[in-house]
Parts: sequence; structure tokens; C-alpha cells
Amino acid sequence: MSGKSANGASAARLEACLARIADPALEGDKVFSQVFAEEARLAAAAADQRAAPLGPLDGRVVSVKNLFDVAGRVTTAGSAVLRGHPAAPRDAAVVARLRGAGAVIVGKTHMTEFAFSGIGINPHDGNPGNPRDRSLIPGGSSSGAVISVLDGMADIGLGSDTGGSLRIPAALCGAVGFKPSSGRVPTDGAFPLSTTLDTVGAIARTVADCAWADEVLSGVPLPAPQPFDRDGLTLTIPRGRLFDMLDAPVARAFERAADTLRAAGFLVRDGSIEAELDLQAELDGVGTFPSVELSARLEAEGLADLAGIDPKIAARIEAGRRVLATDYLRMIRLRAQMVERMDRHLASGEILVLPTVPMLAPAISRLVEDDAEFHRINGLILRNTRVANLFDLPAISLPVGGAPLPVGLMLAGRRLSDRRLLAAAAAIEPLIGDR
Amino acid sequence: MSGKSANGASAARLEACLARIADPALEGDKVFSQVFAEEARLAAAAADQRAAPLGPLDGRVVSVKNLFDVAGRVTTAGSAVLRGHPAAPRDAAVVARLRGAGAVIVGKTHMTEFAFSGIGINPHDGNPGNPRDRSLIPGGSSSGAVISVLDGMADIGLGSDTGGSLRIPAALCGAVGFKPSSGRVPTDGAFPLSTTLDTVGAIARTVADCAWADEVLSGVPLPAPQPFDRDGLTLTIPRGRLFDMLDAPVARAFERAADTLRAAGFLVRDGSIEAELDLQAELDGVGTFPSVELSARLEAEGLADLAGIDPKIAARIEAGRRVLATDYLRMIRLRAQMVERMDRHLASGEILVLPTVPMLAPAISRLVEDDAEFHRINGLILRNTRVANLFDLPAISLPVGGAPLPVGLMLAGRRLSDRRLLAAAAAIEPLIGDR
Repeated sequence: MSGKSANGASAARLEACLARIADPALEGDKVFSQVFAEEARLAAAAADQRAAPLGPLDGRVVSVKNLFDVAGRVTTAGSAVLRGHPAAPRDAAVVARLRGAGAVIVGKTHMTEFAFSGIGINPHDGNPGNPRDRSLIPGGSSSGAVISVLDGMADIGLGSDTGGSLRIPAALCGAVGFKPSSGRVPTDGAFPLSTTLDTVGAIARTVADCAWADEVLSGVPLPAPQPFDRDGLTLTIPRGRLFDMLDAPVARAFERAADTLRAAGFLVRDGSIEAELDLQAELDGVGTFPSVELSARLEAEGLADLAGIDPKIAARIEAGRRVLATDYLRMIRLRAQMVERMDRHLASGEILVLPTVPMLAPAISRLVEDDAEFHRINGLILRNTRVANLFDLPAISLPVGGAPLPVGLMLAGRRLSDRRLLAAAAAIEPLIGDR
Repeated sequence: MSGKSANGASAARLEACLARIADPALEGDKVFSQVFAEEARLAAAAADQRAAPLGPLDGRVVSVKNLFDVAGRVTTAGSAVLRGHPAAPRDAAVVARLRGAGAVIVGKTHMTEFAFSGIGINPHDGNPGNPRDRSLIPGGSSSGAVISVLDGMADIGLGSDTGGSLRIPAALCGAVGFKPSSGRVPTDGAFPLSTTLDTVGAIARTVADCAWADEVLSGVPLPAPQPFDRDGLTLTIPRGRLFDMLDAPVARAFERAADTLRAAGFLVRDGSIEAELDLQAELDGVGTFPSVELSARLEAEGLADLAGIDPKIAARIEAGRRVLATDYLRMIRLRAQMVERMDRHLASGEILVLPTVPMLAPAISRLVEDDAEFHRINGLILRNTRVANLFDLPAISLPVGGAPLPVGLMLAGRRLSDRRLLAAAAAIEPLIGDR
């Protein structure tokens, strides 16, 4: 887990990552919109020369989703309309924290335009494929983040999650993606999709790396490692509408994982959050936060006409312009009720377990060509993950083994129980994966 | 200033207040919507029996504007449509703080319906008049608060101020009204007119009583009294649109007060906040926070049809329903810019000085009968005071002497400089009043 094992290790690791980015057999030119090779080499050399490591992220290679400000670089948030904007005057808060912890920032990664879909395709910046099968979507919106990690171009991918943007790509590609409770990690200097729902976290190969990243991103030290007490934990499978329309391989892999956990001594039981989801359905009937809040942001940027924006994304933005202010305040009120109610529901400390995404990664071509299919799949792909954003739960997606393509198992805990969730995930991770 | 000078003093003071409330020559039945005579007698007796006073408000008689929850009583916020609501289960945060400081809560006072005008008339609860001339408006929305104080029915009137609701009645009737910076005094348990702009404060006869009330309401002890340093203070008269259309007696009384302050050694100079007011005009062109936020609140209460609400108020509420969510977010953004910009403008510590209200108190009858005149006068009466709400400044209205009817001089300081403003007001108060 620790980053630096010997002098020169960070520089060597960085060169390996840069070589992978440049490898014509891979899609580094699409995965990265900007590569900071020389700055990264200086950072790696500095890490290698330190008398003592700054911490577990010192010298680790980190990619940054292109909605975070990096000083001196333009933040495009995956949009052609922001390419002409001035360079960011300073780093986003989380980028500054990563640098302060010794991380080597290798470049900025591909994303859905404005982070506003779970698919991970982008007509402006190209469509890098799923590392398991390049004809399939990687999932989004942190598409480049997950590919950079799984294709060996970075150790950790910094991303954001407003409705599932860290967990969906992790699930569809076979990585770990962790979304914290809101408020724990600063969003300053990140182009906002939804000021209400945005969260910041990491995609990595292991829960441990996500936890180390959370330590740096939140600024709160991790507790000393200790054996996880399985007996104190209830894993609840929230049967109901979140289990509708599961692809058969997803359902099989999920149930097998649940059986494995039972066999390993975990208390796994069926439960229900249907009453809470009724409240969510009421909220959804009024409007969605990203559509309203992104619309307002683009108006503030002088981009109210939406010219030059992916029509698939523009259609979602336009929906936000029809919402009345009084309805927006109703949404805020309903969401506060939802958060409070789920917090009571989970007060005993149980952790929800469900499939991260109901399907295996679909083909890129089908979603590029067919707008109706894009919107249908996007709604389904976000269905389970966005529950954690709307109810403000920490949530993590872990790879589940045994399926023809990657499948993700999502754990979601009580609000602000992030560190306990990470500990549970670390205990579950070795039991259910392929590795 | 101290409340309790001898044993039995609080009980005697309370009986005097109750006698004034019952006096047929006054309008206590309209000033108070509820009187808590027996509970108040118990509280006064308890205060008189304490071995040592709890503080300067111990045993003082306080009236409470009828938008604050008082446990076991219905909070009508001046509206007939809320009369059937259940009694409040607990005290508003500020009411609890007042009780905890030994204050004697004598009853709940008259107000504009939902606090949504600066006039102070109310078709449901009657129209108590200005103590100086009962045919004139007292100003609002904390109409009963100011009358209760000036007619000897209470020592201190607890009220709220969203656009001027403490300072306008103070100015029109000849009392002191202090509105704090937002966030210093909790609004929990107060029926909200605008969650963005609402503040809570007191009306009293003196700055000292307003300061003692602020100590209790904010929970932050006052500093030890010390001589005020006039040399360190610049009083800036923000000439420009806030001085348009002043009634001649108001203009004369204001300029005379300014001359008096100069003669007393204060540095009084002309200045401008016109650039800041241009931003406010841009905000006003989009919408107003009270109209949007009260609309949403009434919808949440199941009162979306506005049936039974004063048509003068309903017209203002309806305007909020046409505002789009994206425009509401633009208003929030503009206001944040306004607050930041004025904070920089006032960074050197200067205090703005201007007439609280541009006119003398107009006749009740004219405003009851003529809706267009009501809206015109209401806009003008709020014009100067609402600047302090929109830019989030602490502000206080002091009585100015020498005019045929009461005139108020408003001091407004930098955000969160509340205590310095109160100290400046205490130094200025004896120079400019009739007393």
C-alpha cells in the first residue's frame, strides 16, 4: 500500500505510467486531455529525494478529472465551450492537498461533458473504451479516471460523484470507487454540476488506496488499522425497485457474492428502503438538482444558449430551466427530509448492499447513435448509485468476480460513517473479487 | 439600564404594563394578540425572589412578535389562515434565551401578515395606531413591538427584520430598533418570511436596552463599557438614490443631526455606495427573496391557494411564484457578490449614516383604502432599510429630534461589526434626540 519502497521508485513508476499513456495500443490520447510530463517528473524526483516519505500518497501517480482546477491549466469540464476560458489561477482545494501529500499529478482525464451523465462518452474529446473491451463504455462521468488506473497510467484517479460518477466507472471496468458523505471533502475549485449533490473521491485498484486518498482529500488521518469485527455488522440487501431489471449476469454475480459473505460469517439479510425511495420519487417528480444547478451555472458563465454543447447533455440541462424557484425550494426541503429519514433508518449501523449498476457495460456505438437509448440507459445506469447522493450516504463500489464482464457491489452506510464503511469494504474486498 | 433595583420591582413593573395593556385609552387589545398575564406574574415573582439577578434582562418585561413560537401557543404570524394551526410544542430559540435570562414574557404582539410589508396594518388583527398620533401607521412589520414599548406595555419588544421590520417602526414612532448581521441570532422557531434575509432583534427606548437584548439573543456577552473613541470613526453619508424623495421634515432633521454630530467632533463626510446599489438593482430586476421563499413556505403548509390572505400581501406572494429556479440561484449568486463587495467597501470601518425612512408616518386610512398607494408607500418605506438586509449589515435606527413627527437616523456598519455599531450608536444617541 505504501507508495515509496526505494529511492527512484516514484520516478520509475511515473515513467511506466507515461509510457502507458504514450502506448499506441492503448488510448492515452483520449484518456488524458492534458499530460504534465515534465512537472510530474520534477514532483517524482522530489519525492524520491525526500529523507522520509510524507505519507502513503508520497510519490504516487495521480490523475485528475478535468473538472478540477490545476493552476495554470484550463479547466474544461469535458466541454468544448470552456476550452477558451482562462487558465485556473490556483489549484482546486483537493489538488493542493494531493500535492501537499507528495502525490505526482500526471495529467487531466476524460469525462462526460460537465459530468452530466453516467455513460462516459463525449463528442468533443472522443470516446476511450472500457479496458476490458474497448468497444464498450467505461462508464462515467469519471471515465478517464478509471481507465487511467486500470490501464496503468496512474495509481489513483481523482474524480467527482454527483449521481454515481466514481462508482459507475469503477463497477463497469472492475475498479474500486469511493464517494464520501458530503461536506467531508472540499469541492472548491471543482466545476460544479450540482452544488447540492457534488462529492469528491478517488478511483483505485484497492480499497486501501481509496482510503489513503480519502485521508488526504478529507484531511482527517485514518485510524490505525485493526481487525474488522464482522459480528457487529449487519449487511442489508434493500430488495425492491433497485433490484428491478437486473441483467442476469449481474444478478447472479451479486447473489453469489452475498452467499460468499454469509459463508464467511457476515450477517446478510434482506430489508427494504422502499418508503425512503417513495420520498425520492416525490422529489424526482419535481425536478433534479443537477439540471437546475448546472443551468444556473451556465447562465452565470454567459452560456445560456447552450450552443456547442453535446445535444444529449443540453437536453438534460434544458429540463432544469423549466423548474420554478418555489419547486426548487420544495426539492431542498424534501431532500432534507430524505436525509434525516434515511439517517434514522440506518441509525443502528447496518450497511446497505446492492448491485452498483444493474447492467454490464453496453456498447459505445449504440449509445452514440441513439439518443433515446442513451437517455434510457443513463437513467438505469444511475438508478442505484444516485440513491447514495440523494440520501447523502458514503458509498463504495467493489469488483465482484465470476461474471463475463466487471460487476460492482455497492456498500452504502449511514451518513458520516465513511471510515467504518471503508473498513467494512476492506474486509469484504478479498472475499468477493476475482483476485 | 439594569432591570431590577429592588425586591418586587419586576412584579410592579409588570402590573404597570398590564394596566397599560388594559387601558381603554390605549389600544392594547390590538397591540397584543395574546397576553400571558398569569404566566408573566409567576415569572416576575420568580425574578423578584432571586438572590441575585441573572443579568440585565432579569425581570424586564418583554413582548414577543407573533411570529416567534411560544410553547403551548399558536404562532399566527399575523395571519388568519394560521389561527387553526396547532400550538407550538416549544419556544423559539430566542424566546428560550430570553426566559433563561429572566425576562418576563408578557404576550404576543401585532404584526403585518407574515411580516411582509413595512406598513404595519393588518385586516385580520386590526390596525393599532402610531403612539404619537393614532391615525397614523406605526410602521411594520414589528408594529405591536414598537407600540408595546412606547405605550409602556413592555420594556423591550422582540421582533424580526427582513427588510426593515424593526427599524421602520422604530423610526416612525420614535424608538430604537436594532437589526443584527445575519447568523448572529438564531431564527429557529420563527415563522420565516425569507430564510435568506430574516434577522432577529429588539425594539426599545434606548440603545443600551437594545444592546442588552442583543447580548441575550446572540448569547455573546457584551464587552465592558468603555468611552467611545470618536476620532477613530468616520460617518459616511451615502448621497445618491437613497436621498431621493425625502419628505422635507425628514431631510431637515437628518441634516441637522449630521451638523450636530460634526459639531460634537465626529468626522462626517459625504460618500457613495451607488456602485453597490447598482448590483442591488440588478438583483431586484430578477426577483425578491421574501416573495419566493414565503411562496414556497406557504405551499409547504398546504396554503398554495392563498385563500384568506390579505390581498395586499397575496399580491406580493404571487410575484414569487413566477420566478424560475435558475433565476433564484442567480439571486443567491448576486447577493453573495453584493455582500462581499460591500464588505470590502466598508473594510476601513466607516459607518453609513442615512435617514431610516424617507417620510413621516402616513395616515392609516389612505393605505387601507388604496392598494396602489399601499404598494407605492411600502416600496419607499422599505427603500433605505432593506439595503442593510441585502448587504447583510448590522443597522440601527435612532430617534432624531426637532421634527413634527418622529424621524429615524440609521447607522449601518460593516458585516459582523455589530458591537462596534452599538457602541457608536450609544455615543451618538444622546446628541441627536429630543431627550
